[in-house]
This record gives sequence, C-alpha cells and structure tokens, in this order.
Amino acid sequence: MHIEELPTPCAVVDLDRLERNCERMSERMRSLGVRLRPHVKTHKCAEAARLQVRGHFGGVTVSTLAEARAFAAAGFADITYAVPIAPARIAEAAALARGIERLALLVDHEAVAGELEACAAAQGVRLAVLLKVDCGYHRAGVDPTSETALALAARLSRSPYLDFRGVLTHAGHAYRARDAAAATVIAAQERDVTVAFAERARAAGIEIAEVSVGSTPTMCAAADLTGVTEARAGNYAFFDAFQAAIGSCTLADVAFFVLATVIGSYPARGELLLDAGALALSKDEGPRHVDPECGYGLLVHAVSRRPRRGLKLAALTQEHGQVRGAAETVAAQPIGTKVLVVPNHSCLAAALHERYAVVRGDTVIGEWRPVRGW
Amino acid sequence: MHIEELPTPCAVVDLDRLERNCERMSERMRSLGVRLRPHVKTHKCAEAARLQVRGHFGGVTVSTLAEARAFAAAGFADITYAVPIAPARIAEAAALARGIERLALLVDHEAVAGELEACAAAQGVRLAVLLKVDCGYHRAGVDPTSETALALAARLSRSPYLDFRGVLTHAGHAYRARDAAAATVIAAQERDVTVAFAERARAAGIEIAEVSVGSTPTMCAAADLTGVTEARAGNYAFFDAFQAAIGSCTLADVAFFVLATVIGSYPARGELLLDAGALALSKDEGPRHVDPECGYGLLVHAVSRRPRRGLKLAALTQEHGQVRGAAETVAAQPIGTKVLVVPNHSCLAAALHERYAVVRGDTVIGEWRPVRGW
Repeated sequence: MHIEELPTPCAVVDLDRLERNCERMSERMRSLGVRLRPHVKTHKCAEAARLQVRGHFGGVTVSTLAEARAFAAAGFADITYAVPIAPARIAEAAALARGIERLALLVDHEAVAGELEACAAAQGVRLAVLLKVDCGYHRAGVDPTSETALALAARLSRSPYLDFRGVLTHAGHAYRARDAAAATVIAAQERDVTVAFAERARAAGIEIAEVSVGSTPTMCAAADLTGVTEARAGNYAFFDAFQAAIGSCTLADVAFFVLATVIGSYPARGELLLDAGALALSKDEGPRHVDPECGYGLLVHAVSRRPRRGLKLAALTQEHGQVRGAAETVAAQPIGTKVLVVPNHSCLAAALHERYAVVRGDTVIGEWRPVRGW
Repeated sequence: MHIEELPTPCAVVDLDRLERNCERMSERMRSLGVRLRPHVKTHKCAEAARLQVRGHFGGVTVSTLAEARAFAAAGFADITYAVPIAPARIAEAAALARGIERLALLVDHEAVAGELEACAAAQGVRLAVLLKVDCGYHRAGVDPTSETALALAARLSRSPYLDFRGVLTHAGHAYRARDAAAATVIAAQERDVTVAFAERARAAGIEIAEVSVGSTPTMCAAADLTGVTEARAGNYAFFDAFQAAIGSCTLADVAFFVLATVIGSYPARGELLLDAGALALSKDEGPRHVDPECGYGLLVHAVSRRPRRGLKLAALTQEHGQVRGAAETVAAQPIGTKVLVVPNHSCLAAALHERYAVVRGDTVIGEWRPVRGW
C-alpha cells in the first residue's frame, strides 16, 4: 500500500529513519564508553525497542508498569521503571520482578524505601533499586548535596530486602536548551553532579555500581561521560519538531509523523482544515522558547518529506487542525490533499494512536501496536 | 471497591453528577423547544450517551467514523458526523449509512458535494447531508452571507443522490467567553446567523428542515432558540475546569476526574509529584483567558470532591504532574495520598483512557470502555 492510501488520521513510522537513529545513538554511546538502556516510552512497542538495544546489553527503560509488563512478556529481561513508584503498586512491581532478571525501581524518599522493604519482606523477594538524584531539573530526586541523600543511599545499601544498584538522574532541563551547544553544557552538568554524588557515596563506604544518566538532548550532545556507566534516552528513536528546533537532530531525522487529509479549504481567510486535531497530535506547545510562532507541528510532503512552506498548523481542537497561510498557498492544497505532520512532541502524539503504520519511503510495510495505559 | 483503591492514574466518572448533568440539559432543551442531539465525543461510550438522549428522540452527534460505527452497533440509529468528511472515507461512511436510519454528513465545499454524489451514485444510496455554516467561529463552514453558500445549498437540495436536511453550525468561539452572560450573547448570534441563513435559503425556494446549533457554553446559556430545530452539545455530560471557569457550570457539576497518587514530596522547594501527567490529563492549556495561572487542572479531595486549596498543578510531563504549594501544604500530602484532578478539558483527558471507573459517591460500581481511534 502507498502511504497516501492510509485512512487518516494515521500515525506513521519511517523505518529507515528509525533504524538510522537507533544505530547512531547506539554507536555514540559505545564511543562514549557507556552502555545504552534506551527508554521505550516514546514508541512503546517491542519492534522499535529491539532496534534500540542493538549493539548493547538489551536493557530498557520504561515509564509505566504497563510497559514493564508488556516488555517483560516480549522478552526484555532487564528493565528500569524510571518514574517514582506509587506505594499501592509496589506489590504489582514485585510480582513482575520475580519473572525477569531485574526490574529496578526508583527511590527518592525514606517513606518509599520503607514500603519497598515491607513488600520485599512479605513477598520473599529482593528488589533492585536506584536512588533518584536531582541533577538540576527539579522534578524528582534527592538533592545530591544534602546529607539526607547520603543517608538514604546508606539505608538502601544496607537493606537486606533491597539490591541497591546505584544512582539515576534525568536532565529534563536540557529541553530548555536553545541549541546543541547549550545541551552539551547541561550534559556535562548532568554527569558532574551525578558522578560527584556517586563518589561522595563511595567515599562514605556505599557501593555504587551504576551511574545512570540521560535524556535525548543531553545524550545527543554529550562530549564526555566519564564516570557514567549507563545512558538512558528514548525520544531519539523518533525525534520530533521540538528536538529539531533545539538541535538534537535535523528535520530529516524525524521518524514519526501523523498523516492527515485536508478536509476544509477557506482561501478567503487563508485557512485549511486537517482531520488531525488534538487527539491525533496532542496539544504539546512545542519549542516556543526557540520559536514562539512554532504552532502545533510542521507540515511536510507525504512522499518527499520536504517542508510545505508557507503553511502553519496554528490551532488544534479535538478532531480539527487549523492551518494558516497565504490565500494562494492555501488554494494550492485542495480538499483531499494528504500531508504529513511532524508533531511537536512525538512521545505524546504516538501515545494517542492504537497502531502505527510502518513505512519504508512511500510504501507501507507493516503495522505496530504500542502498549497503552498504566 | 472504594474509589481510593483504584490503581492510579485512573479515569473516574461520577455517575450521580453525569445523570444530573444529562437531565438538566435534556430539560433545558425541551423548555427551549428544540430536540437534543447530544454530542458523544466527550465520553465516547454508549452508557453515557443513553443518559444523554433520555427525554429526546435518540439521535446523537459523533466526531469520528469510529464513533459512528460503534454507536450504530450499540443501537443508535440517527447519527450526525459533525466534522467535514475526508473524501477518501466517503465510501466507508456510505456503507455505514446503509445499516442505520440516517447518518448525516457535513458539506461546506462544492468539491465534497461532487464526491458525495459520485459515491452515492456508485453505491446506489442516498446520503443525508447538512450544510455547515460558519456562525463566527471561523473553523469550518460556508460564509452564510455569501452567494456561494446559497448556491451550494441549492445544489445540495437539487441533487438526486443527496437527502439535503438543512444547516448546522457550531459556536466554538463561545469558548472564548469569560462568563455565562457573554455566552448568552454568542448563543443569540449562533442562532441569529444560522436562522437568518435558513430563512434566506427558504426564500430562495430551498427546503431547510433542520437548523442545528450547539456547543456546551451556548446551550448552557441560551435564552431563546426560536427558529432552531436541534441542539448539539456534548461536553456538559462531564464538564471540566474550563467550563466551570467560564460559567457553563460550577465545579460541583464536574463528573469526570483523573485519580492520581502523590509519588514524590519535596517540601523544601514546595513541590509534590503526581503519577498523572500529560498522558493521563492532556496538555490542554485550560481557561488561561480567564485565569492565566490556571495550570493543568484542579485538585480536589477524592471522597468529598472539595478543592485542595493552596496546591496548583503547575506542569505536566509524560507521566509526571508537578504540583506547587507552600511547604506546609505540600508536607501535609504525604507520598501515597490519593487526589482527584479535575482536568482542564475532559474531552481530551477522557480520550487518553482505555476505561473509566464509574463511581457513585466513593464506591466504584462499574467500568465503561470508550471508543478509540478514527
């Protein structure tokens, strides 16, 4: 089937680009001397994860227990659940951990350490844990300069119920970078803060086997990862308009699109209507810190993937995308025209789709079904 | 099961409130002398639609062909697909139309009229159509003051392949209202513009049986619908933080929530972390025109539904919700605390969930599964 024959709106994965993105990150991490534990939350499907782990040890990172269950069932045996776990779901995670080599959970609070120990004791298992460290993003994690951080690491390392593996951080503030040079600086900070904490813990007699860092902007830009053992990045598999805007990639690297059809044409007011709205693309604001006029995604030609210049995806409602442009540009895209939209944020857009059409060039060669829910 | 025992994040429908919202709108439309054809796009499930159509003729409005298929299969026989159809999907719609009393499609362009006629001729069916009129929202629809609008109505009414039913509009600009009084003015405009066009068409000898208007803000606020035959609103079934902010309802009417758990606590920087992020709530910006500091939803107590004052859902990433507040307020919500989030936009938040837990008060009494995809 030709890509333009797909019923719209439809999520599309460009397999050539996905393979290239995976190979590049795999090689980049090998050359920087760290093992890659790719995050699978962007695509949430085993087919893409198998491309991501090539050349590395096979471990993956997940953002939900539903992903953990599905990837365990698909044969991935070493999984890090990189979101602090809700206490009520620890038992479920522990049961899952029994069935695979390792499911590592994050801890950044004494109270959760206690809950994990109680569950491990009750179920007769030893749970792998990592201490989440805040390297400057200020979303989750302990303050690595604090004494409580060191005390929590010591407690985790001493626990008979826990297999304390080390430290993990995520430089999400790299998404505020304006270019790759800025991301390189943040990558150095992500490494420095985390390695320094690991050294401080080791000096206090705490064994820290793993030092895990990563985000797509920092792992695309990092110049040196000395002291780091493992990198986690995920968005790079697909990339998106945001990553292109901040220099993690070029538009020619983006491997995920939403195919849409022009369903309305209003040249008198310079507008087109697409059948891809907020439920096909998400209302992610995109790289407004770099381009306040970025809109809700970029339009490219369905076959060539070249930008459709002079058209802006200015607004999204539930099932409508409103495109603005000059009257003559609008008039040149009659109703029925197929366009590919490069979403602002591929993680959020992909999660809206029950299936992805997989293409090589302009030919549909398969279909993948992502994991959903929690 | 008690509501707080649900695994989080979890979509929750408050059935008492849903029933009350449906009854009120049903009665409101009866008292205004119009039939109600509720939109089902907010909840996308037959159980809720059956509550919405009580006291009216049973017709519904859908936003996708997937909804049309599912609701037809669930016994809804009179359906309006209220988004301009993509030409490549007309054949699919025509096949669906054969199996029920009526599936009405929108037209706002000559080219689509031609495609509909060609498909109807090929399949030997007569397709019900409505002319979409732009009453001031400027998303879709013909300019009702134009000659081309009248010419298109005439063409549709003369076509042997089409069953031209009348006109349809949607005052989406009512979402820009700041209060119910402003929505009442827009409701009058929605009615006036559409009824005036219908009268102009009738004066030109074109039969206009149906005059369909509607949005939740305008149908909650309309004072007079003279000349209108049918109202379409949908969000009112659930409502949300946006509708409460612009006066369509109060917070005590909102019937849809996302249950979340506190998974991180950082009193030193005045933050909590929830396990409900952009994939549980959507990144809808909410009523920023009324409250620039509205954040991404409102926090209420899981049982009482009373607001949790002093806490703001300030940021969402894929699986994290970041809540800010004073150190002591944050410290009073320990890890494991369950909260209900009133989403900014229930249509977008509900569509992210594969299932809804249905509750009466604090007791879970069932589960509904919404339609997904297109």
